[in-house]
Amino acid sequence: MYKLVLIRHGESTWNKENRFTGWHDVDLTDTGVAQAKMAGKLLKENGFSFDLAFTSVLTRAMRTLWIALDEMNELYTPVVRHWRLNERHYGALTGLNKAETAEKHGEDQVKIWRRSFDIPPPAVEESDERFPAHDKRYAGIDPRILPKAESLALTIDRVLPYWHDTIVPEIRGGKKVIIAAHGNSLRALVKYLDDMSDQEVLELNIPTGVPLVYELDENLKPLNKQYLGDPEEIKKMMDAVANQGKSK
Amino acid sequence: MYKLVLIRHGESTWNKENRFTGWHDVDLTDTGVAQAKMAGKLLKENGFSFDLAFTSVLTRAMRTLWIALDEMNELYTPVVRHWRLNERHYGALTGLNKAETAEKHGEDQVKIWRRSFDIPPPAVEESDERFPAHDKRYAGIDPRILPKAESLALTIDRVLPYWHDTIVPEIRGGKKVIIAAHGNSLRALVKYLDDMSDQEVLELNIPTGVPLVYELDENLKPLNKQYLGDPEEIKKMMDAVANQGKSK
Repeated sequence: MYKLVLIRHGESTWNKENRFTGWHDVDLTDTGVAQAKMAGKLLKENGFSFDLAFTSVLTRAMRTLWIALDEMNELYTPVVRHWRLNERHYGALTGLNKAETAEKHGEDQVKIWRRSFDIPPPAVEESDERFPAHDKRYAGIDPRILPKAESLALTIDRVLPYWHDTIVPEIRGGKKVIIAAHGNSLRALVKYLDDMSDQEVLELNIPTGVPLVYELDENLKPLNKQYLGDPEEIKKMMDAVANQGKSK
Repeated sequence: MYKLVLIRHGESTWNKENRFTGWHDVDLTDTGVAQAKMAGKLLKENGFSFDLAFTSVLTRAMRTLWIALDEMNELYTPVVRHWRLNERHYGALTGLNKAETAEKHGEDQVKIWRRSFDIPPPAVEESDERFPAHDKRYAGIDPRILPKAESLALTIDRVLPYWHDTIVPEIRGGKKVIIAAHGNSLRALVKYLDDMSDQEVLELNIPTGVPLVYELDENLKPLNKQYLGDPEEIKKMMDAVANQGKSK
Protein backbone atom coordinates (compact mmCIF):
# COMPACT_ATOMS: atom_id res chain seq x y z
CA MET A 1 0.00 0.00 0.00
CA TYR A 2 1.19 3.48 -0.84
CA LYS A 3 0.50 6.91 0.64
CA LEU A 4 0.40 10.04 -1.46
CA VAL A 5 -0.16 13.61 -0.27
CA LEU A 6 -1.52 16.38 -2.47
CA ILE A 7 -1.53 20.00 -1.40
CA ARG A 8 -2.93 23.04 -3.16
CA HIS A 9 -0.91 26.21 -2.57
CA GLY A 10 -2.09 28.67 0.07
CA GLU A 11 -3.97 31.85 -0.78
CA SER A 12 -2.19 33.99 -3.36
CA THR A 13 -2.42 37.73 -3.94
CA TRP A 14 -4.55 37.21 -7.02
CA ASN A 15 -6.81 34.66 -5.28
CA LYS A 16 -7.42 37.46 -2.82
CA GLU A 17 -8.10 40.00 -5.56
CA ASN A 18 -10.24 37.39 -7.29
CA ARG A 19 -8.25 37.57 -10.55
CA PHE A 20 -7.70 34.81 -13.08
CA THR A 21 -4.14 33.84 -12.26
CA GLY A 22 -3.24 30.69 -14.17
CA TRP A 23 0.40 30.81 -15.22
CA HIS A 24 0.96 34.37 -13.95
CA ASP A 25 3.54 34.09 -11.18
CA VAL A 26 2.01 35.74 -8.10
CA ASP A 27 3.16 35.08 -4.56
CA LEU A 28 1.35 33.96 -1.40
CA THR A 29 -0.48 36.38 0.87
CA ASP A 30 0.23 36.35 4.61
CA THR A 31 -2.81 34.09 4.91
CA GLY A 32 -1.31 31.79 2.28
CA VAL A 33 1.95 31.64 4.21
CA ALA A 34 0.04 30.82 7.41
CA GLN A 35 -1.89 28.07 5.57
CA ALA A 36 1.35 26.54 4.32
CA LYS A 37 2.80 26.60 7.85
CA MET A 38 -0.33 24.97 9.22
CA ALA A 39 -0.09 22.29 6.53
CA GLY A 40 3.51 21.53 7.55
CA LYS A 41 2.50 21.43 11.20
CA LEU A 42 -0.35 19.00 10.50
CA LEU A 43 1.88 16.78 8.38
CA LYS A 44 4.50 16.68 11.11
CA GLU A 45 1.98 16.04 13.89
CA ASN A 46 0.52 13.19 11.86
CA GLY A 47 3.90 11.57 11.40
CA PHE A 48 4.36 12.26 7.69
CA SER A 49 7.78 12.39 6.10
CA PHE A 50 8.55 12.39 2.39
CA ASP A 51 11.24 10.90 0.20
CA LEU A 52 10.41 13.08 -2.77
CA ALA A 53 8.36 16.20 -3.47
CA PHE A 54 6.96 17.46 -6.76
CA THR A 55 5.80 20.97 -7.48
CA SER A 56 5.16 23.35 -10.37
CA VAL A 57 7.45 26.15 -11.53
CA LEU A 58 5.12 28.78 -10.05
CA THR A 59 6.22 30.58 -6.90
CA ARG A 60 3.01 30.12 -4.91
CA ALA A 61 3.24 26.32 -5.13
CA MET A 62 7.03 26.16 -4.66
CA ARG A 63 6.83 28.44 -1.62
CA THR A 64 3.95 26.49 -0.09
CA LEU A 65 6.04 23.33 -0.37
CA TRP A 66 9.15 25.03 1.03
CA ILE A 67 7.27 26.45 4.01
CA ALA A 68 5.60 23.11 4.78
CA LEU A 69 8.90 21.18 4.56
CA ASP A 70 10.59 23.89 6.64
CA GLU A 71 7.91 23.51 9.32
CA MET A 72 8.57 19.74 9.25
CA ASN A 73 12.35 20.36 9.61
CA GLU A 74 12.80 18.40 6.40
CA LEU A 75 14.09 20.94 3.92
CA TYR A 76 16.50 18.26 2.73
CA THR A 77 13.62 16.46 0.99
CA PRO A 78 14.44 16.29 -2.75
CA VAL A 79 12.16 18.58 -4.75
CA VAL A 80 11.41 18.29 -8.47
CA ARG A 81 9.79 21.26 -10.20
CA HIS A 82 7.93 20.81 -13.48
CA TRP A 83 5.77 23.04 -15.64
CA ARG A 84 3.29 20.22 -16.27
CA LEU A 85 2.11 20.68 -12.67
CA ASN A 86 1.33 24.37 -13.28
CA GLU A 87 -2.16 25.81 -12.86
CA ARG A 88 -4.58 25.83 -15.79
CA HIS A 89 -3.62 28.55 -18.30
CA TYR A 90 -6.48 31.05 -18.43
CA GLY A 91 -5.46 32.52 -21.78
CA ALA A 92 -6.66 36.05 -22.44
CA LEU A 93 -8.55 36.09 -19.13
CA THR A 94 -5.26 36.01 -17.24
CA GLY A 95 -5.01 39.08 -15.04
CA LEU A 96 -8.69 39.98 -15.19
CA ASN A 97 -10.64 40.41 -12.00
CA LYS A 98 -13.19 37.61 -11.81
CA ALA A 99 -16.04 39.73 -10.50
CA GLU A 100 -15.42 42.38 -13.18
CA THR A 101 -15.33 39.72 -15.87
CA ALA A 102 -18.59 38.35 -14.51
CA GLU A 103 -20.18 41.81 -14.66
CA LYS A 104 -18.91 42.32 -18.20
CA HIS A 105 -19.55 38.91 -19.73
CA GLY A 106 -22.22 37.68 -17.36
CA GLU A 107 -21.84 35.22 -14.56
CA ASP A 108 -22.84 32.32 -16.80
CA GLN A 109 -20.07 32.97 -19.32
CA VAL A 110 -17.52 33.22 -16.52
CA LYS A 111 -18.79 29.99 -15.07
CA ILE A 112 -18.44 28.37 -18.49
CA TRP A 113 -14.87 29.58 -18.82
CA ARG A 114 -13.91 28.65 -15.30
CA ARG A 115 -16.01 25.61 -14.80
CA SER A 116 -16.82 23.96 -18.11
CA PHE A 117 -14.89 20.82 -18.74
CA ASP A 118 -13.69 21.37 -22.27
CA ILE A 119 -14.37 24.94 -23.42
CA PRO A 120 -11.13 26.90 -23.19
CA PRO A 121 -11.14 30.64 -22.54
CA PRO A 122 -10.00 32.98 -25.36
CA ALA A 123 -6.39 32.23 -26.34
CA VAL A 124 -3.47 34.66 -26.06
CA GLU A 125 -1.53 35.60 -29.18
CA GLU A 126 2.04 34.31 -29.47
CA SER A 127 3.23 37.91 -29.17
CA ASP A 128 1.32 38.36 -25.90
CA GLU A 129 3.63 38.44 -22.87
CA ARG A 130 1.22 36.00 -21.28
CA PHE A 131 2.28 33.33 -23.79
CA PRO A 132 4.70 31.17 -21.76
CA ALA A 133 7.43 31.09 -24.44
CA HIS A 134 8.39 34.64 -23.39
CA ASP A 135 9.31 33.48 -19.88
CA LYS A 136 12.80 32.06 -19.47
CA ARG A 137 11.61 29.35 -17.12
CA TYR A 138 10.06 27.67 -20.18
CA ALA A 139 13.16 28.08 -22.35
CA GLY A 140 14.06 24.86 -24.11
CA ILE A 141 10.45 23.68 -24.32
CA ASP A 142 9.02 23.56 -27.83
CA PRO A 143 6.62 26.56 -27.91
CA ARG A 144 4.16 24.40 -29.84
CA ILE A 145 3.40 22.40 -26.70
CA LEU A 146 3.07 25.46 -24.45
CA PRO A 147 -0.54 26.49 -23.80
CA LYS A 148 -2.24 29.64 -25.09
CA ALA A 149 -5.41 28.86 -23.12
CA GLU A 150 -6.60 25.72 -21.41
CA SER A 151 -9.90 24.14 -20.55
CA LEU A 152 -9.85 21.75 -17.62
CA ALA A 153 -9.78 18.93 -20.20
CA LEU A 154 -6.62 20.38 -21.79
CA THR A 155 -5.09 20.84 -18.35
CA ILE A 156 -5.68 17.18 -17.59
CA ASP A 157 -4.12 16.16 -20.92
CA ARG A 158 -1.05 18.18 -20.00
CA VAL A 159 -0.73 17.01 -16.35
CA LEU A 160 -1.32 13.27 -16.68
CA PRO A 161 1.76 12.40 -18.80
CA TYR A 162 3.89 13.73 -15.95
CA TRP A 163 1.92 11.67 -13.44
CA HIS A 164 2.28 8.45 -15.42
CA ASP A 165 5.84 8.87 -16.64
CA THR A 166 7.57 10.50 -13.69
CA ILE A 167 5.55 10.41 -10.47
CA VAL A 168 4.05 6.91 -10.66
CA PRO A 169 7.41 5.12 -11.10
CA GLU A 170 8.70 6.90 -7.97
CA ILE A 171 5.65 5.89 -5.93
CA ARG A 172 5.89 2.31 -7.18
CA GLY A 173 9.59 2.38 -6.32
CA GLY A 174 8.59 2.93 -2.71
CA LYS A 175 9.10 6.68 -2.44
CA LYS A 176 6.75 8.59 -0.15
CA VAL A 177 5.62 11.45 -2.35
CA ILE A 178 4.03 14.87 -1.81
CA ILE A 179 2.77 17.01 -4.70
CA ALA A 180 2.34 20.75 -4.11
CA ALA A 181 0.41 22.23 -6.98
CA HIS A 182 -2.71 24.14 -8.04
CA GLY A 183 -6.49 23.90 -8.00
CA ASN A 184 -6.78 22.56 -11.52
CA SER A 185 -3.59 20.52 -11.84
CA LEU A 186 -4.67 18.74 -8.65
CA ARG A 187 -8.20 18.32 -9.98
CA ALA A 188 -6.59 16.52 -12.91
CA LEU A 189 -4.91 14.06 -10.56
CA VAL A 190 -7.94 13.59 -8.33
CA LYS A 191 -10.22 13.02 -11.34
CA TYR A 192 -7.88 10.35 -12.59
CA LEU A 193 -7.29 8.68 -9.21
CA ASP A 194 -10.96 8.70 -8.20
CA ASP A 195 -12.15 7.88 -11.71
CA MET A 196 -14.51 10.86 -11.64
CA SER A 197 -16.75 11.79 -14.56
CA ASP A 198 -16.24 15.08 -16.40
CA GLN A 199 -19.29 16.39 -14.55
CA GLU A 200 -18.16 15.26 -11.12
CA VAL A 201 -14.80 16.98 -11.35
CA LEU A 202 -16.53 20.29 -12.05
CA GLU A 203 -18.09 20.11 -8.61
CA LEU A 204 -14.77 19.29 -6.96
CA ASN A 205 -13.34 22.20 -4.96
CA ILE A 206 -9.95 21.58 -3.41
CA PRO A 207 -9.27 23.84 -0.42
CA THR A 208 -6.03 25.84 -0.32
CA GLY A 209 -3.21 24.72 1.94
CA VAL A 210 -4.90 21.57 3.27
CA PRO A 211 -3.01 18.29 2.86
CA LEU A 212 -5.09 15.66 1.04
CA VAL A 213 -3.92 12.17 1.93
CA TYR A 214 -4.52 9.22 -0.37
CA GLU A 215 -3.96 5.61 0.55
CA LEU A 216 -3.46 3.65 -2.66
CA ASP A 217 -3.44 -0.09 -3.26
CA GLU A 218 -0.77 -1.94 -5.23
CA ASN A 219 -2.43 -0.83 -8.48
CA LEU A 220 -2.52 2.77 -7.24
CA LYS A 221 -6.28 2.63 -6.81
CA PRO A 222 -7.50 4.69 -3.83
CA LEU A 223 -8.44 2.76 -0.71
CA ASN A 224 -9.10 5.89 1.27
CA LYS A 225 -8.72 9.66 1.08
CA GLN A 226 -8.93 12.36 3.70
CA TYR A 227 -8.00 15.96 4.33
CA LEU A 228 -5.80 16.60 7.36
CA GLY A 229 -7.21 19.16 9.76
CA ASP A 230 -10.46 20.39 11.21
CA PRO A 231 -13.41 19.26 8.99
CA GLU A 232 -15.52 22.40 9.61
CA GLU A 233 -12.64 24.68 8.73
CA ILE A 234 -12.01 22.69 5.55
CA LYS A 235 -15.69 22.86 4.54
CA LYS A 236 -15.56 26.66 4.86
CA MET A 237 -12.48 26.82 2.64
CA MET A 238 -14.06 24.59 -0.01
CA ASP A 239 -17.15 26.82 -0.07
CA ALA A 240 -14.94 29.89 -0.43
CA VAL A 241 -13.31 28.34 -3.51
CA ALA A 242 -16.70 27.41 -4.99
CA ASN A 243 -17.86 31.02 -4.59
CA GLN A 244 -14.94 32.54 -6.53
CA GLY A 245 -16.08 34.00 -9.82
CA LYS A 246 -19.55 34.86 -8.68
CA SER A 247 -20.09 38.58 -9.16
CA LYS A 248 -20.53 40.51 -5.99
CA MET B 1 33.85 29.19 -21.79
CA TYR B 2 31.82 28.37 -18.70
CA LYS B 3 30.78 30.35 -15.64
CA LEU B 4 30.37 28.77 -12.23
CA VAL B 5 29.24 30.44 -9.02
CA LEU B 6 30.10 29.17 -5.55
CA ILE B 7 28.52 30.53 -2.42
CA ARG B 8 29.19 29.72 1.21
CA HIS B 9 26.10 29.87 3.42
CA GLY B 10 25.47 32.99 5.47
CA GLU B 11 26.27 33.22 9.17
CA SER B 12 24.69 30.41 11.21
CA THR B 13 23.75 30.34 14.87
CA TRP B 14 26.76 28.18 15.70
CA ASN B 15 29.12 30.32 13.62
CA LYS B 16 27.95 33.12 15.87
CA GLU B 17 28.47 31.07 19.04
CA ASN B 18 31.82 29.97 17.65
CA ARG B 19 30.96 26.26 17.90
CA PHE B 20 32.20 23.40 15.72
CA THR B 21 29.13 22.80 13.58
CA GLY B 22 30.02 20.39 10.79
CA TRP B 23 27.06 18.13 10.05
CA HIS B 24 24.94 19.48 12.90
CA ASP B 25 21.92 21.11 11.28
CA VAL B 26 21.78 24.68 12.58
CA ASP B 27 19.94 27.50 10.86
CA LEU B 28 21.00 30.96 9.67
CA THR B 29 21.08 33.97 11.96
CA ASP B 30 19.34 37.19 10.90
CA THR B 31 22.75 38.32 9.66
CA GLY B 32 23.01 35.10 7.65
CA VAL B 33 19.60 35.72 6.11
CA ALA B 34 20.63 39.28 5.22
CA GLN B 35 23.87 37.98 3.65
CA ALA B 36 21.93 35.51 1.52
CA LYS B 37 19.57 38.28 0.37
CA MET B 38 22.51 40.48 -0.51
CA ALA B 39 24.04 37.62 -2.48
CA GLY B 40 20.83 37.22 -4.47
CA LYS B 41 20.66 40.94 -5.07
CA LEU B 42 24.28 41.07 -6.31
CA LEU B 43 23.73 38.08 -8.59
CA LYS B 44 20.62 39.67 -10.05
CA GLU B 45 22.25 43.08 -10.51
CA ASN B 46 25.16 41.42 -12.27
CA GLY B 47 22.89 39.61 -14.68
CA PHE B 48 23.33 36.08 -13.36
CA SER B 49 20.73 33.41 -13.92
CA PHE B 50 21.16 29.69 -13.34
CA ASP B 51 19.97 26.54 -15.05
CA LEU B 52 20.81 24.31 -12.13
CA ALA B 53 21.71 24.70 -8.46
CA PHE B 54 23.49 22.28 -6.16
CA THR B 55 23.49 22.38 -2.39
CA SER B 56 24.08 20.18 0.65
CA VAL B 57 21.39 18.59 2.81
CA LEU B 58 22.07 21.05 5.63
CA THR B 59 19.51 23.78 6.28
CA ARG B 60 21.93 26.71 6.39
CA ALA B 61 23.14 26.04 2.84
CA MET B 62 19.71 25.11 1.45
CA ARG B 63 18.17 28.23 2.96
CA THR B 64 20.96 30.48 1.67
CA LEU B 65 20.32 29.15 -1.82
CA TRP B 66 16.54 29.51 -1.50
CA ILE B 67 16.80 33.11 -0.26
CA ALA B 68 19.23 34.07 -3.02
CA LEU B 69 17.07 32.49 -5.75
CA ASP B 70 13.99 34.10 -4.20
CA GLU B 71 15.70 37.50 -4.34
CA MET B 72 16.46 36.81 -8.03
CA ASN B 73 12.80 35.85 -8.64
CA GLU B 74 14.07 32.51 -9.90
CA LEU B 75 12.75 30.01 -7.39
CA TYR B 76 11.93 27.78 -10.34
CA THR B 77 15.64 27.00 -10.78
CA PRO B 78 16.10 23.23 -10.36
CA VAL B 79 17.89 22.41 -7.12
CA VAL B 80 19.76 19.20 -6.34
CA ARG B 81 20.67 18.47 -2.73
CA HIS B 82 23.45 16.04 -1.86
CA TRP B 83 25.23 15.03 1.34
CA ARG B 84 28.61 15.03 -0.40
CA LEU B 85 28.42 18.84 -0.42
CA ASN B 86 27.98 18.94 3.37
CA GLU B 87 30.43 20.71 5.66
CA ARG B 88 33.43 18.84 7.05
CA HIS B 89 32.36 16.46 9.83
CA TYR B 90 34.05 17.63 13.03
CA GLY B 91 33.60 14.29 14.81
CA ALA B 92 33.61 14.48 18.60
CA LEU B 93 34.31 18.21 18.48
CA THR B 94 30.84 18.81 17.01
CA GLY B 95 28.88 21.10 19.29
CA LEU B 96 31.88 22.35 21.28
CA ASN B 97 32.50 26.05 21.57
CA LYS B 98 35.70 26.85 19.72
CA ALA B 99 37.07 29.30 22.26
CA GLU B 100 36.39 26.84 25.11
CA THR B 101 38.05 24.03 23.18
CA ALA B 102 41.02 26.31 22.60
CA GLU B 103 41.26 27.08 26.30
CA LYS B 104 41.02 23.39 27.19
CA HIS B 105 43.23 21.84 24.53
CA GLY B 106 45.32 24.85 23.68
CA GLU B 107 45.05 27.08 20.68
CA ASP B 108 47.65 25.04 18.78
CA GLN B 109 45.71 21.78 19.09
CA VAL B 110 42.50 23.50 17.94
CA LYS B 111 44.35 24.98 15.02
CA ILE B 112 45.64 21.49 14.14
CA TRP B 113 42.13 20.03 14.25
CA ARG B 114 40.56 22.89 12.35
CA ARG B 115 43.36 23.80 10.04
CA SER B 116 45.64 20.84 9.49
CA PHE B 117 45.24 19.24 6.12
CA ASP B 118 45.02 15.57 7.04
CA ILE B 119 44.71 15.13 10.81
CA PRO B 120 41.05 14.40 11.60
CA PRO B 121 39.53 15.40 14.94
CA PRO B 122 38.55 12.62 17.40
CA ALA B 123 35.89 10.35 15.82
CA VAL B 124 32.37 9.84 17.15
CA GLU B 125 31.25 6.34 18.11
CA GLU B 126 28.61 4.66 15.92
CA SER B 127 26.20 4.90 18.85
CA ASP B 128 26.76 8.67 19.11
CA GLU B 129 23.79 10.68 17.84
CA ARG B 130 26.30 12.77 15.93
CA PHE B 131 27.07 9.77 13.70
CA PRO B 132 25.07 10.57 10.52
CA ALA B 133 23.49 7.10 10.21
CA HIS B 134 21.06 8.10 13.00
CA ASP B 135 19.62 10.92 10.89
CA LYS B 136 16.92 9.91 8.42
CA ARG B 137 18.24 12.25 5.73
CA TYR B 138 21.11 9.77 5.33
CA ALA B 139 18.87 6.69 5.26
CA GLY B 140 19.74 4.42 2.37
CA ILE B 141 23.42 5.37 2.41
CA ASP B 142 25.78 2.60 3.50
CA PRO B 143 26.86 3.70 7.01
CA ARG B 144 30.38 2.55 6.17
CA ILE B 145 30.84 5.52 3.85
CA LEU B 146 29.37 8.06 6.31
CA PRO B 147 32.02 10.03 8.20
CA LYS B 148 32.77 9.76 11.93
CA ALA B 149 35.27 12.63 11.70
CA GLU B 150 36.94 14.32 8.78
CA SER B 151 40.18 16.14 8.12
CA LEU B 152 40.11 18.59 5.24
CA ALA B 153 41.81 15.87 3.15
CA LEU B 154 38.98 13.42 3.89
CA THR B 155 36.41 16.13 3.13
CA ILE B 156 38.02 16.67 -0.26
CA ASP B 157 38.00 12.91 -0.95
CA ARG B 158 34.27 12.89 -0.21
CA VAL B 159 33.33 16.04 -2.17
CA LEU B 160 35.28 15.53 -5.41
CA PRO B 161 33.49 12.40 -6.67
CA TYR B 162 30.29 14.43 -6.69
CA TRP B 163 32.01 17.26 -8.57
CA HIS B 164 33.45 14.95 -11.22
CA ASP B 165 30.50 12.60 -11.63
CA THR B 166 27.50 14.90 -11.28
CA ILE B 167 28.36 18.59 -11.45
CA VAL B 168 31.00 18.59 -14.22
CA PRO B 169 28.78 16.82 -16.78
CA GLU B 170 26.09 19.44 -16.21
CA ILE B 171 28.53 22.32 -16.69
CA ARG B 172 29.97 20.70 -19.81
CA GLY B 173 26.41 20.19 -21.03
CA GLY B 174 26.01 23.96 -21.02
CA LYS B 175 24.14 24.43 -17.74
CA LYS B 176 24.86 27.59 -15.78
CA VAL B 177 25.51 26.23 -12.29
CA ILE B 178 25.55 27.65 -8.76
CA ILE B 179 26.76 25.64 -5.77
CA ALA B 180 25.63 26.73 -2.30
CA ALA B 181 27.67 24.89 0.28
CA HIS B 182 30.06 25.22 3.22
CA GLY B 183 33.48 26.57 4.14
CA ASN B 184 35.27 23.26 3.75
CA SER B 185 33.28 21.62 0.97
CA LEU B 186 33.91 24.78 -1.07
CA ARG B 187 37.60 24.75 -0.10
CA ALA B 188 37.68 21.27 -1.62
CA LEU B 189 36.35 22.61 -4.92
CA VAL B 190 38.55 25.71 -4.94
CA LYS B 191 41.66 23.67 -4.12
CA TYR B 192 40.90 21.39 -7.04
CA LEU B 193 39.97 24.15 -9.49
CA ASP B 194 42.91 26.40 -8.59
CA ASP B 195 45.30 23.46 -8.23
CA MET B 196 46.34 24.67 -4.77
CA SER B 197 48.84 22.85 -2.61
CA ASP B 198 47.77 21.31 0.69
CA GLN B 199 49.46 24.24 2.42
CA GLU B 200 47.84 26.90 0.28
CA VAL B 201 44.30 25.67 0.92
CA LEU B 202 44.88 25.97 4.67
CA GLU B 203 45.30 29.71 4.23
CA LEU B 204 42.16 30.00 2.10
CA ASN B 205 39.25 31.64 3.93
CA ILE B 206 36.01 31.83 2.00
CA PRO B 207 33.71 34.59 3.24
CA THR B 208 30.10 33.74 4.11
CA GLY B 209 27.33 34.72 1.73
CA VAL B 210 29.54 36.24 -0.98
CA PRO B 211 29.15 34.83 -4.51
CA LEU B 212 32.47 33.61 -5.91
CA VAL B 213 32.41 33.66 -9.71
CA TYR B 214 34.69 31.43 -11.77
CA GLU B 215 35.21 31.71 -15.48
CA LEU B 216 36.42 28.34 -16.76
CA ASP B 217 37.93 27.38 -20.10
CA GLU B 218 36.79 24.42 -22.19
CA ASN B 219 38.83 22.10 -19.95
CA LEU B 220 37.27 23.67 -16.85
CA LYS B 221 40.54 25.38 -15.95
CA PRO B 222 39.97 28.80 -14.30
CA LEU B 223 40.55 31.83 -16.51
CA ASN B 224 39.44 34.24 -13.83
CA LYS B 225 37.82 34.31 -10.40
CA GLN B 226 36.26 37.10 -8.40
CA TYR B 227 33.98 37.73 -5.49
CA LEU B 228 30.89 39.83 -6.22
CA GLY B 229 30.51 42.84 -3.95
CA ASP B 230 32.52 45.47 -2.15
CA PRO B 231 36.19 44.33 -1.83
CA GLU B 232 36.77 45.98 1.56
CA GLU B 233 33.67 44.38 3.03
CA ILE B 234 34.77 40.99 1.69
CA LYS B 235 38.27 41.36 3.16
CA LYS B 236 36.71 42.02 6.58
CA MET B 237 34.58 38.88 6.30
CA MET B 238 37.57 36.72 5.30
CA ASP B 239 39.54 38.01 8.30
CA ALA B 240 36.60 37.23 10.57
CA VAL B 241 36.61 33.62 9.32
CA ALA B 242 40.38 33.35 9.82
CA ASN B 243 40.00 34.51 13.42
CA GLN B 244 37.43 31.89 14.38
CA GLY B 245 38.86 29.37 16.84
CA LYS B 246 41.36 31.73 18.40
CA SER B 247 40.70 31.82 22.15
CA LYS B 248 39.50 35.15 23.36
